[in-house]
Amino acid sequence: MRVAIGVEYAGNAFDGWQTQPGGKTVQDALERALAVIAQAPTKLVCAGRTDAGVHATTQVAHFDTVANRPLEAWVRGVNSHLPDSVGVLWAVEADEAFHARFSAESRHYRYVLLNRRVRPALMDGRVGWIHGSLDHEAMARAAECLLGEHDFTSFRAAACQAKSPVRFMHALRVHRQGDVVLFDFHANAFLHHMIRNLVGALVYVGIGRRPVEWMAEVLAVRNRTLAAPTFAPDGLYLCGVEYPQRWPLPGGGRIIAPPQLLLS
Amino acid sequence: MRVAIGVEYAGNAFDGWQTQPGGKTVQDALERALAVIAQAPTKLVCAGRTDAGVHATTQVAHFDTVANRPLEAWVRGVNSHLPDSVGVLWAVEADEAFHARFSAESRHYRYVLLNRRVRPALMDGRVGWIHGSLDHEAMARAAECLLGEHDFTSFRAAACQAKSPVRFMHALRVHRQGDVVLFDFHANAFLHHMIRNLVGALVYVGIGRRPVEWMAEVLAVRNRTLAAPTFAPDGLYLCGVEYPQRWPLPGGGRIIAPPQLLLS
Repeated sequence: MRVAIGVEYAGNAFDGWQTQPGGKTVQDALERALAVIAQAPTKLVCAGRTDAGVHATTQVAHFDTVANRPLEAWVRGVNSHLPDSVGVLWAVEADEAFHARFSAESRHYRYVLLNRRVRPALMDGRVGWIHGSLDHEAMARAAECLLGEHDFTSFRAAACQAKSPVRFMHALRVHRQGDVVLFDFHANAFLHHMIRNLVGALVYVGIGRRPVEWMAEVLAVRNRTLAAPTFAPDGLYLCGVEYPQRWPLPGGGRIIAPPQLLLS
Repeated sequence: MRVAIGVEYAGNAFDGWQTQPGGKTVQDALERALAVIAQAPTKLVCAGRTDAGVHATTQVAHFDTVANRPLEAWVRGVNSHLPDSVGVLWAVEADEAFHARFSAESRHYRYVLLNRRVRPALMDGRVGWIHGSLDHEAMARAAECLLGEHDFTSFRAAACQAKSPVRFMHALRVHRQGDVVLFDFHANAFLHHMIRNLVGALVYVGIGRRPVEWMAEVLAVRNRTLAAPTFAPDGLYLCGVEYPQRWPLPGGGRIIAPPQLLLS
């Protein structure tokens, strides 16, 4: 049986999603807990392999098992064997052809950037921070050139293993709520470090270090070394994955949970 | 010179506000950092001594010093010597007669209660949790009897050192945002554990274990043993302190920073 699950986690408690020898990743924690309930080794596949420090309000993953358990066992049973900062939100029986990664049509990420004079304390590890005044309207204009299909080589990590650097950006909204600037990304998929690299470049525009037009130039030149440094992972949240309606998933396949953050 | 400061902290990283031999409290961390900048032992007095696990978006405190430093040194200088989960937000020169605790006219607290089937993971330690469905409208009705001046003995910890159990509740709002129930308290002052005890009792009404009228009965009987258990500290935020306008403080003395839920 194939089971799909929704997962939430605080990324600052883990070394990223993907399994590592040290075993301190989200995948490692989940696979250990699933193995207890399944009474057998259990491998997970996820929709978006988040970096160390990156959070998720709703990661989606699937696993195969021969264990016959009520679905509730894959939620509360698994949760009772997980560290406090990761939890399963729901579990559904999935078709054998469903694949958490390859069936996904698009992903949503939000970057939460605290823009104030003093560093975050209450939200340490949960938000990015920049102390200089940010022009969010300039960043919103600079982001417009990223919409649609582009070769995002300029915003791709050297270690990126994707076959193609081309991605389709459905939406990119930059907006302010008090002293927080929110960056909402929606694309078919993202390259390694792509969002953190885009945020870094947008911040260069926001602080006036580069003009609005510079973003299109960097995109066109397809050269990572000409863009801005990778921004911190702290403020990044995987907050949605969309699947075709035919899969029996929560929300008709539109699995979206924008982060509810406590900020002052 | 007397200096007033605003402070923010994640309470789950500390053993409460008040200094303890172990030195793992917010006050201990701040006094150590202030001593580095002042180059002398420095004692802090705060507006509201929060329990272990209780957060603050805007605690207010004062200290006396003979050190002649620019105000910025009491903010960014002190911050550079603090743990990541506590930070000074602002510093102003205060009158010698100003007292962070005794000059305060009222305090604001918010309790954030996650009301969903599965435990919090992303917000572990930052929100309270109850899995059964809560009737927030019943809780709002039950809260009405708490408004105004009352003897709150029924909601007072045994260890409470206050001379009088009488407090004046200016406002108590219970409202829902999605799967979060918010409790906003505004009173002249609060007894030890008073808010957590009130939340515990309101939750008894919210889950239907007690009727709405029970709250007034518990209040009237002035007996702690008849109320509900103390609720977890995780969801509690000190989020405002009000002072008379004559003190030269931010916001004209109304220092309020409610923790906000950032929804899309």
